[in-house]
Amino acid sequence: MTLSAQPGNKSDRPLTGREKIYLVIFGTETPMGRLFDEILLVAILVSVSVVVLGSISALSNAYGQWFSSIEWFFTVIFTIEYGLRLYCSPNPFRYARSFFGVVDFVSIIPTYVAFFFFPSAEYLLIIRLLRILRIFRVLKLIRYLREANILGRSIYNSRRKILVFFFSILVLVTIYGALMYVIEGSEHGFSSIPKGMYWAIVTITTVGYGDIAPQTELGRMLAALVMLTGYAIIAVPTGIITSELVGEMQKDKNLRVCPNCDRLGHDNDAIYCKHCGSPMEQKSTG
Amino acid sequence: MTLSAQPGNKSDRPLTGREKIYLVIFGTETPMGRLFDEILLVAILVSVSVVVLGSISALSNAYGQWFSSIEWFFTVIFTIEYGLRLYCSPNPFRYARSFFGVVDFVSIIPTYVAFFFFPSAEYLLIIRLLRILRIFRVLKLIRYLREANILGRSIYNSRRKILVFFFSILVLVTIYGALMYVIEGSEHGFSSIPKGMYWAIVTITTVGYGDIAPQTELGRMLAALVMLTGYAIIAVPTGIITSELVGEMQKDKNLRVCPNCDRLGHDNDAIYCKHCGSPMEQKSTG
Amino acid sequence: MTLSAQPGNKSDRPLTGREKIYLVIFGTETPMGRLFDEILLVAILVSVSVVVLGSISALSNAYGQWFSSIEWFFTVIFTIEYGLRLYCSPNPFRYARSFFGVVDFVSIIPTYVAFFFFPSAEYLLIIRLLRILRIFRVLKLIRYLREANILGRSIYNSRRKILVFFFSILVLVTIYGALMYVIEGSEHGFSSIPKGMYWAIVTITTVGYGDIAPQTELGRMLAALVMLTGYAIIAVPTGIITSELVGEMQKDKNLRVCPNCDRLGHDNDAIYCKHCGSPMEQKSTG
Amino acid sequence: MTLSAQPGNKSDRPLTGREKIYLVIFGTETPMGRLFDEILLVAILVSVSVVVLGSISALSNAYGQWFSSIEWFFTVIFTIEYGLRLYCSPNPFRYARSFFGVVDFVSIIPTYVAFFFFPSAEYLLIIRLLRILRIFRVLKLIRYLREANILGRSIYNSRRKILVFFFSILVLVTIYGALMYVIEGSEHGFSSIPKGMYWAIVTITTVGYGDIAPQTELGRMLAALVMLTGYAIIAVPTGIITSELVGEMQKDKNLRVCPNCDRLGHDNDAIYCKHCGSPMEQKSTG
Repeated sequence: MTLSAQPGNKSDRPLTGREKIYLVIFGTETPMGRLFDEILLVAILVSVSVVVLGSISALSNAYGQWFSSIEWFFTVIFTIEYGLRLYCSPNPFRYARSFFGVVDFVSIIPTYVAFFFFPSAEYLLIIRLLRILRIFRVLKLIRYLREANILGRSIYNSRRKILVFFFSILVLVTIYGALMYVIEGSEHGFSSIPKGMYWAIVTITTVGYGDIAPQTELGRMLAALVMLTGYAIIAVPTGIITSELVGEMQKDKNLRVCPNCDRLGHDNDAIYCKHCGSPMEQKSTG
Repeated sequence: MTLSAQPGNKSDRPLTGREKIYLVIFGTETPMGRLFDEILLVAILVSVSVVVLGSISALSNAYGQWFSSIEWFFTVIFTIEYGLRLYCSPNPFRYARSFFGVVDFVSIIPTYVAFFFFPSAEYLLIIRLLRILRIFRVLKLIRYLREANILGRSIYNSRRKILVFFFSILVLVTIYGALMYVIEGSEHGFSSIPKGMYWAIVTITTVGYGDIAPQTELGRMLAALVMLTGYAIIAVPTGIITSELVGEMQKDKNLRVCPNCDRLGHDNDAIYCKHCGSPMEQKSTG
Repeated sequence: MTLSAQPGNKSDRPLTGREKIYLVIFGTETPMGRLFDEILLVAILVSVSVVVLGSISALSNAYGQWFSSIEWFFTVIFTIEYGLRLYCSPNPFRYARSFFGVVDFVSIIPTYVAFFFFPSAEYLLIIRLLRILRIFRVLKLIRYLREANILGRSIYNSRRKILVFFFSILVLVTIYGALMYVIEGSEHGFSSIPKGMYWAIVTITTVGYGDIAPQTELGRMLAALVMLTGYAIIAVPTGIITSELVGEMQKDKNLRVCPNCDRLGHDNDAIYCKHCGSPMEQKSTG
Repeated sequence: MTLSAQPGNKSDRPLTGREKIYLVIFGTETPMGRLFDEILLVAILVSVSVVVLGSISALSNAYGQWFSSIEWFFTVIFTIEYGLRLYCSPNPFRYARSFFGVVDFVSIIPTYVAFFFFPSAEYLLIIRLLRILRIFRVLKLIRYLREANILGRSIYNSRRKILVFFFSILVLVTIYGALMYVIEGSEHGFSSIPKGMYWAIVTITTVGYGDIAPQTELGRMLAALVMLTGYAIIAVPTGIITSELVGEMQKDKNLRVCPNCDRLGHDNDAIYCKHCGSPMEQKSTG
């Protein structure tokens, strides 16, 4: 409903074959449409697993032929699916240019390219893995969508604050990285400012590999400062997301409906509808 | 009360012996029942400690015989306890199939199995450790339960959001792992996509062992991106749990109703209704 | 005011010498009392710094004699201070048994013990460092106290939830540690269940030293699970503290005073005082 | 507007040349002023990038002459800009002493100093990097400022709580560091109390390099305690910032007043007052 218009759904004339296919492939309200999405979900998971497992040399040496066959099987399946989507879509061009249209297309190309042009091109693996993104579309059929919406909306609402935050981090990381480059120098692994910035990011995010670590007294004192800074500012994105989520979830709970205009979002202590001004009955909240 | 019905508790006829045992073993309201639970708590902690200490080779070489004896002592105790539970339960079959019934049964088996069949089977240790789960049942006697309930309810309420979140993490980890596999390759430890995914999880959760770390420039740039991503999304589960807890704790506080105007939202220390000014009875809060 | 009654403060008779000393040493309201606390703060910081710096062998070899003299100087100062506190306190026995009384006493003993009995006992260093705890008493003179109170109250209010949380962590760590002990075994560093538990704590808290790390496929899969668990549950203490702080700070902000009974803590939308039921004027909030 | 008064902006007399330059350099409301800020932003980013890239020996060996030329180009540009700011400012002395005045001055000096006095002084690099701080001034032209304000205000409001928190951390770190120094000793890398404190900071912030790690049983038990402490208190700064942000964002949303009954707390999308039902004018929100 949200991603695509459903042609002929509410009119009385019988559906054409193309419209029936549309309802199955794009829709999620009919039993067939739901079944299609479930099969597609399994197909995507299996095809992604094959790519992942195929990268383990022990497995690909032993079962390489099998993996290749399964790969081709799913490529053909997904090619047919892509063709059907183009065929039955009321606006094929718009589908082809949409995000999932591009993902659908890009994820079937690598097998053909690898076959005809670059047989052993490893980097094509990643493109094949893009199929996994299609799972998000299939997930629209299950009821986890509302939860994903709240999360997504919270992150979207706080995007500017997060950008400001990351920009400040970047400035901090540049200055810390340069300081460590000057203090520790090449002999302790800080061979350039970018390497110092890498160390600063590893430290400020509290990952701490330990592949590059300060070894002078002064470097360790600065490192302690960087860590405590990181400790303090790890609180900031948390605070941003949390306060957005608190707001979103409160909004989600304020499900009082105006008896006059049917709109939602009224506070629990509202006596008059904030949209149309008509009185609301007092509702007891559990 | 919540986990089991107490037979004959409120009727006037005298209790049978089986019902008395039931009250001691399953109940927590009588002094005997509380004493039983406290002894059981100590027994579980000691028996788990014996398993943990028995894994230290220096200790098991020196005191192996002692550990074995204590092991058998508790196995017999717990076997008797299990038998009594089956005997006095008004519905033995339902108890045997319940979660704690299964834990009770499974945690006494390993000693017998190790004795009769596989004397040195190390993996049985873990099954014996399941006894520790019984502590959660015993804990119902102490007043920390209300706190555990608020925590549990918050986590339960946000289970779908957390699932959506972990699913997104998994997709991200798969793509990052594949990218690192292609960029760094086997010579730097990224010998397969699953290994790359392991690295991505180690990095995105900010654990950062450093056993596998990027060594190329491009790999380090991607790693920095992964870390900053991890830094940002560590905020999401925190936000989910926090906003649930804020809600749960508010609900916990806002359940006082004014007897005159029936409105909610009064503080625990309110003596008069803040809306109509009529007195509220003092309610004791645990 | 909170920790000790001030004798003679509000009566009209002139203060005795002992009471004057009391006001300087224990009080913070007179200029002399404030000066005394400030000098004490500096003395504590310097004496702690001497202990810390004295542990660096390069410094203690070069300036050992100086450190020893400063050590003795402060020990004598703190001994005199302790004597004065005992002398002027209206209830010396109660002071001697109080938390800070014990810290005051314990922190002057080590120097004498080291001189008369164990000249080079290194572990006495730590006892001397306990002096640093006295800073918290001195800090009561500055205005950061109100902030410390809000923090302290929040942590105190959520102590039960945090205990329940840590108890669950401990059960989880025991089970994970035992699993890794069985999966990885001694040859990969997991030589006992306690060592596995140490690894589980290092991992679940996202510290990740990397001194012990899984090396088998199965071990790495379990480790990934442990990390994701840690990632999710790091949210729980954050949620607990945050929701308490949100509540505490709101309470702190609700500074509406009832014109009749002068009590605080009224909600912004309160029309009648929740304590005495008399009407409150509407106050505009910025 | 906030940082500087704009001379002659609202009077009717024509602007002098100096005032026109002022509007372009300091102002952000005219198209020219906005263009100037955008060019300055790019110039700062490029000049900082040159310093960062110049630290990579491979690049500086190959393109050293180019980097030097670009360096001089930007130094001349920024010198002219600094001169113009001094010339057109209505109060040059006040500008020169302001934070950004000092940064502007300090960031052009290093190139001259390096040329005339210390040709290869590496530490001057960092001073040149201070230019990056000027970005924050330029950013005032874009609309991310409001978000930065909310973040900044939240951190500013919670500065005392954060100070109290860091002070407690420091006391904890000192005591933990001294304990580990005594327990593990020099042979395991804990060669002094400051080094133990460095380890304690690395551990409590969950960075965990692993360059210094406990190796005795007792040391590992203490380390586990330090980690769990760190795990619990990582929640505190998060809680502080989050509760401030929740408050700030609520304040941001709740400033709409009903023109009829003067009550607050209306949602941004409210058309009618929820208390009295009278219409509210629509207010556009950024």
